[in-house]
Amino acid sequence: MAWNTNLRGRLPITCLILQVTMVVLFGVFVRYDIQADAHWWLEKKRKNISSDVENEFYYRYPSFQDVHAMVFVGFGFLMTFLQRYGFSAVGFNFLLAAFGIQWALLMQGWFHYFEEGHIVLSVENIIQADFCVASSCVAFGAVLGKVSPMQLLIMTFFQVTLFTVNEYILLNLIEAKDAGGSMTIHTFGAYFGLTVTWILYRKNLDQSKQRQSSVYHSDLFAMIGTLFLWIYWPSFNSASSFHGDAQHRAALNTYLSLAASVLTTATVSSIVHKKGKLDMVHIQNATLAGGVGVGTAAEMMLTPYGALIVGFFCGIFSTLGFAYLSPFLESRLRIQDTCGIHNLHGIPGIIGGIVGAVTAAYSSPDVYGAPGIVHSFGFGSYKVDWNKSMQGRSQIFGLLLSLAMALVGGIIVGFILKLPFWGQAADENCFEDSVYWEVHEEVNTVYIPEDLAHKHSTSLVPAMPLVLPTTSASIVPPVPPTPPVSLATSAPSAALVH
Amino acid sequence: MAWNTNLRGRLPITCLILQVTMVVLFGVFVRYDIQADAHWWLEKKRKNISSDVENEFYYRYPSFQDVHAMVFVGFGFLMTFLQRYGFSAVGFNFLLAAFGIQWALLMQGWFHYFEEGHIVLSVENIIQADFCVASSCVAFGAVLGKVSPMQLLIMTFFQVTLFTVNEYILLNLIEAKDAGGSMTIHTFGAYFGLTVTWILYRKNLDQSKQRQSSVYHSDLFAMIGTLFLWIYWPSFNSASSFHGDAQHRAALNTYLSLAASVLTTATVSSIVHKKGKLDMVHIQNATLAGGVGVGTAAEMMLTPYGALIVGFFCGIFSTLGFAYLSPFLESRLRIQDTCGIHNLHGIPGIIGGIVGAVTAAYSSPDVYGAPGIVHSFGFGSYKVDWNKSMQGRSQIFGLLLSLAMALVGGIIVGFILKLPFWGQAADENCFEDSVYWEVHEEVNTVYIPEDLAHKHSTSLVPAMPLVLPTTSASIVPPVPPTPPVSLATSAPSAALVH
Amino acid sequence: MAWNTNLRGRLPITCLILQVTMVVLFGVFVRYDIQADAHWWLEKKRKNISSDVENEFYYRYPSFQDVHAMVFVGFGFLMTFLQRYGFSAVGFNFLLAAFGIQWALLMQGWFHYFEEGHIVLSVENIIQADFCVASSCVAFGAVLGKVSPMQLLIMTFFQVTLFTVNEYILLNLIEAKDAGGSMTIHTFGAYFGLTVTWILYRKNLDQSKQRQSSVYHSDLFAMIGTLFLWIYWPSFNSASSFHGDAQHRAALNTYLSLAASVLTTATVSSIVHKKGKLDMVHIQNATLAGGVGVGTAAEMMLTPYGALIVGFFCGIFSTLGFAYLSPFLESRLRIQDTCGIHNLHGIPGIIGGIVGAVTAAYSSPDVYGAPGIVHSFGFGSYKVDWNKSMQGRSQIFGLLLSLAMALVGGIIVGFILKLPFWGQAADENCFEDSVYWEVHEEVNTVYIPEDLAHKHSTSLVPAMPLVLPTTSASIVPPVPPTPPVSLATSAPSAALVH
Repeated sequence: MAWNTNLRGRLPITCLILQVTMVVLFGVFVRYDIQADAHWWLEKKRKNISSDVENEFYYRYPSFQDVHAMVFVGFGFLMTFLQRYGFSAVGFNFLLAAFGIQWALLMQGWFHYFEEGHIVLSVENIIQADFCVASSCVAFGAVLGKVSPMQLLIMTFFQVTLFTVNEYILLNLIEAKDAGGSMTIHTFGAYFGLTVTWILYRKNLDQSKQRQSSVYHSDLFAMIGTLFLWIYWPSFNSASSFHGDAQHRAALNTYLSLAASVLTTATVSSIVHKKGKLDMVHIQNATLAGGVGVGTAAEMMLTPYGALIVGFFCGIFSTLGFAYLSPFLESRLRIQDTCGIHNLHGIPGIIGGIVGAVTAAYSSPDVYGAPGIVHSFGFGSYKVDWNKSMQGRSQIFGLLLSLAMALVGGIIVGFILKLPFWGQAADENCFEDSVYWEVHEEVNTVYIPEDLAHKHSTSLVPAMPLVLPTTSASIVPPVPPTPPVSLATSAPSAALVH
Repeated sequence: MAWNTNLRGRLPITCLILQVTMVVLFGVFVRYDIQADAHWWLEKKRKNISSDVENEFYYRYPSFQDVHAMVFVGFGFLMTFLQRYGFSAVGFNFLLAAFGIQWALLMQGWFHYFEEGHIVLSVENIIQADFCVASSCVAFGAVLGKVSPMQLLIMTFFQVTLFTVNEYILLNLIEAKDAGGSMTIHTFGAYFGLTVTWILYRKNLDQSKQRQSSVYHSDLFAMIGTLFLWIYWPSFNSASSFHGDAQHRAALNTYLSLAASVLTTATVSSIVHKKGKLDMVHIQNATLAGGVGVGTAAEMMLTPYGALIVGFFCGIFSTLGFAYLSPFLESRLRIQDTCGIHNLHGIPGIIGGIVGAVTAAYSSPDVYGAPGIVHSFGFGSYKVDWNKSMQGRSQIFGLLLSLAMALVGGIIVGFILKLPFWGQAADENCFEDSVYWEVHEEVNTVYIPEDLAHKHSTSLVPAMPLVLPTTSASIVPPVPPTPPVSLATSAPSAALVH
Repeated sequence: MAWNTNLRGRLPITCLILQVTMVVLFGVFVRYDIQADAHWWLEKKRKNISSDVENEFYYRYPSFQDVHAMVFVGFGFLMTFLQRYGFSAVGFNFLLAAFGIQWALLMQGWFHYFEEGHIVLSVENIIQADFCVASSCVAFGAVLGKVSPMQLLIMTFFQVTLFTVNEYILLNLIEAKDAGGSMTIHTFGAYFGLTVTWILYRKNLDQSKQRQSSVYHSDLFAMIGTLFLWIYWPSFNSASSFHGDAQHRAALNTYLSLAASVLTTATVSSIVHKKGKLDMVHIQNATLAGGVGVGTAAEMMLTPYGALIVGFFCGIFSTLGFAYLSPFLESRLRIQDTCGIHNLHGIPGIIGGIVGAVTAAYSSPDVYGAPGIVHSFGFGSYKVDWNKSMQGRSQIFGLLLSLAMALVGGIIVGFILKLPFWGQAADENCFEDSVYWEVHEEVNTVYIPEDLAHKHSTSLVPAMPLVLPTTSASIVPPVPPTPPVSLATSAPSAALVH
């Protein structure tokens, strides 16, 4: 089946309506938090704050910048691994995230930052908005190459909404902890995306399977994404933790877990290859599983070796998932997961939720100190009559809730996206930038060495440089059905063999 | 016309003179600020500072690092979009910025940081130096591909000088505010660069127009630049603001403005394409217009929705500029603006100046609180007898001054750069790295699978790997006027044919 | 000679043993430092700390993140300049560094952070671990393309061990200062790597020399590494300095030194080329020499112009090294230094050690103030009876020690790595990713424009897109239906058709 992928009129109207709505809603609802308001001077006086450095900005902004880099550079470039979908990977991720953060500021603002009729805005909100959008970037990985930018904007709209509701129930009603978002961001994002791609199943996707693989350069571009995600993940998991030891500890735990998952990823990647070679898909993705798996427990007293153990197993299960589970999901369950988000965010997300529950259930005043446990979990303070096993149970409920919200939400949103007028591409044109982007044909020009040009001045220099069209990394014009000599049907290097 | 592009002797002498001059002038003038001096211990005692964290370094250094990344990675890679000019884009930007920051430290030091016969150096100075050089990177965008590295160094020398004079008049004499540099950096930088390229008009530039477009991979490299500029722009606009709420607010406003301009850029990009496709040129550039447009007002009480509105219109006008204004400027006004800086920095810069003036003119004690407005604008404090409308007028004067300095300075510098001995390339060799860089010819080697090699040991492995020349993104050797037969023997692959 | 490069079984077991060992040793030895422990609440009370911002995390974490980016993104991408070794450059660097930081945490923990039977872990340790691993990344540059991932892991294991011993003697026994690691990181790392590659000399390496050069895109990828190293180097040299003025000063000095070395690199690069062109190898590497050269003295009162002078000469010597010394070392001394680390880390490292010694020897209370010199060097405090000339001598001993440790260690480790069962490649297959990585063959697929597809629906669209296989990373020009003769005049590869 082929749809009309011409977005003229439709995409602009969608973007414009969304952005105008944002402006209006921000006008009605959003104001600066006192820490970002010119009245902070008064607040400092009132609270007897002696130093500007106590402004939340200085505690959070460096972490925020790392998270921001992860969402836009990290996720964007991670998905450029496809040979002909780099523009869309990085460009659509840019578009959906830029919209998503605005909508997330509103949604999360209404639930978490609403004071006297207004949402109050500070560096905390923009960290949380980036977190929320990270779950949309995760889900984008499942449907990468198969959806139009309009579908992505609509998916993001619904996903941000559901994310915020899920997060509110999980953090405020169930009172679970989830600093790095193993449950709210990764588990929810992954299973939401997988459910959507399951509903959007494309029977004839093998018609574009050539484009579904990487090429040499695209794998290097993807490594830009991998490495920026990897190095900044400690900031991600610690960005919203309490000041001081919790934020410090969250960064350390994540650092360790990530390091361990690199080693076990290499281990399994080599085991599953018949000649023991490494696979870039594994190195690009499963090395990050340690960061996902330690998300919930990062700020807890997980212990350094506990963090290593989490990363150890996340790397293993994630790589095994890429090697064996993804093909199975595609062939048997009809889940076409382009980036393998089930392996990078789904499985490690669930592991993370369980690790968080276990760590919380074993938290005790011996480990945290009496005031420490009050400070970390709120037992006896705002959570009167709670204890560690209740906290453990609460964590598990949070995990199950995230899964349920993802599945139900994913089905509903999947059916909305299945409607035929969103400009989606035909099965044979998936994973192709030219559908939605103006792509220049590659040409190679002749360079006339400057000394030659200098000598002969203008006489020998042609008025127009000679142009040789090549196909380098660009679209090959359909090959005429008549193969001239055997060259056309065989590899060019084959010709050398004669 | 063809000039001698051989830089041997000329470029080294230029670089060397400039660098030796820097060393001497630094020796005479530059010392550490007390906060970076080993005597800070005494200063802490004298001022009764209780914590090391009060050292300016901790307030500013994280923002500085983001600004530094923008200048060298952001601007450098943004300009790699040309198919054969990546080395020059990233390499010349590196060279001019590395020289420019040194000269800027001196120039700005004399005007702003001169104490008891010396320039005192701290983290503030290096932020300001990076800001100053950012305006040179902007101007480089206009002349990209058409000037030699010597011309760039000379342009940077003069531009940094003019920038500092303009900034001094604007900030210290007119007493305008310009935290994010909409006027001093973007408006000045853009119109300076445009004037220079106007003076350097090249009649036969269409002779190298094939190289003036992007190819698939070069557009992805450019997106590295775009994204690092985009994510770090909140740090740019807030880096030099007052501690506390002003810095906090500047980051938030910029974050919002940038998000809005992504959506409106996509809107207009799709509208102006006949099939509704997106254009990478727009996504790479116009998405950043929101950061430029909010530069002056970022630290003011612009309100969150005000920031969104600024980004909204900057995205629209910038994209329209790329679609309609740039071709007009080139064909009618003979302004050959390679990167379209008029659309990314010129128009949004002017918008930013006006937004700043309006925001300042509407600043009132109702919004800022009585001490807040003193703190933000200095009314009644160092600016005795000032009021908001005077501030508004002052902002507009600042904008007009920046434009005037750019035009007059650009004309003078343009004529200096027009002199024929700077090593500029001929029109038909513009946008080509090989003019100034040693470029390796691309060859593909044959890989002998290791198991095969293993089996046959050394016997079957040729002493030299087979080499296939390809044309991929590389230079096509000049086609000799000899018949094809001799071509076959001249190309390296010829040997394989026999 | 050809070895068996099939790593199946061997690489996984190596990785697994190393990682399991790490988990066990961390379980036995590593605990959170009080600043990252839930008991910090008590510590704050005990020490009367009024603000969370006094947690070491807030002083060091932003610098740490920059260092982390340098190790994983900076070094990784810097080495992607080879045309067919990008996966290995960035992937093996990732693998060795991820293992190395864990082992470094243990080794350095035992020597520096051991308290009451445990290693206490905080942000300081992870900065030091990244520093230690940076020396392994340096050494990797010498053997790049010629060793297997197993060899790299083993080399890293020994190098981290030796590094820590050397560092302990240098900092704690000899009491030298080395904030930015000119001696411990760069000199040690470089000469260790050079000695290893000297032992691993490959006689027939010219059989793979075609792959030992860069191509256009690979040079741009390498510039990502260069620029991230360059912009974050001020954080590197200041990350472990004392709070306040020392950290501040170290960043400023490094900023200046790096700027100067860009200009002198361009100078010499142009001088040594017969047409005055610039060489990407120089720009990618020698521009960083200023950061290496200022490493030891960065936190001292080097003066701003002193920093410029150091960068000035480092840029010159480093570029001259690439132009003249590297070829000499390879042909005469049989040192095959793939990345030219002798020029980037070796020479500037020694310069840095000497500059540090001289600066220390001239440190006086006039310059530092009486308490400043106690604070900076500890004279009269923990170093009773020391004076500046003893400090100078101590620095020189430190430099000589680093060289000695590198040479002796390198010889031993070199012979261990020479054993034939580590999976190293044959001489003719060096610098080739396919040996250790699954590399997809590059194919170009046919894109059927969506409007065409739309019109004809499914009828004309082939069930499978047409696929043209091409040689890796290269291109087949579209085969026209014209006879070979006319083809021969249009493309050089035409010769293949005969």
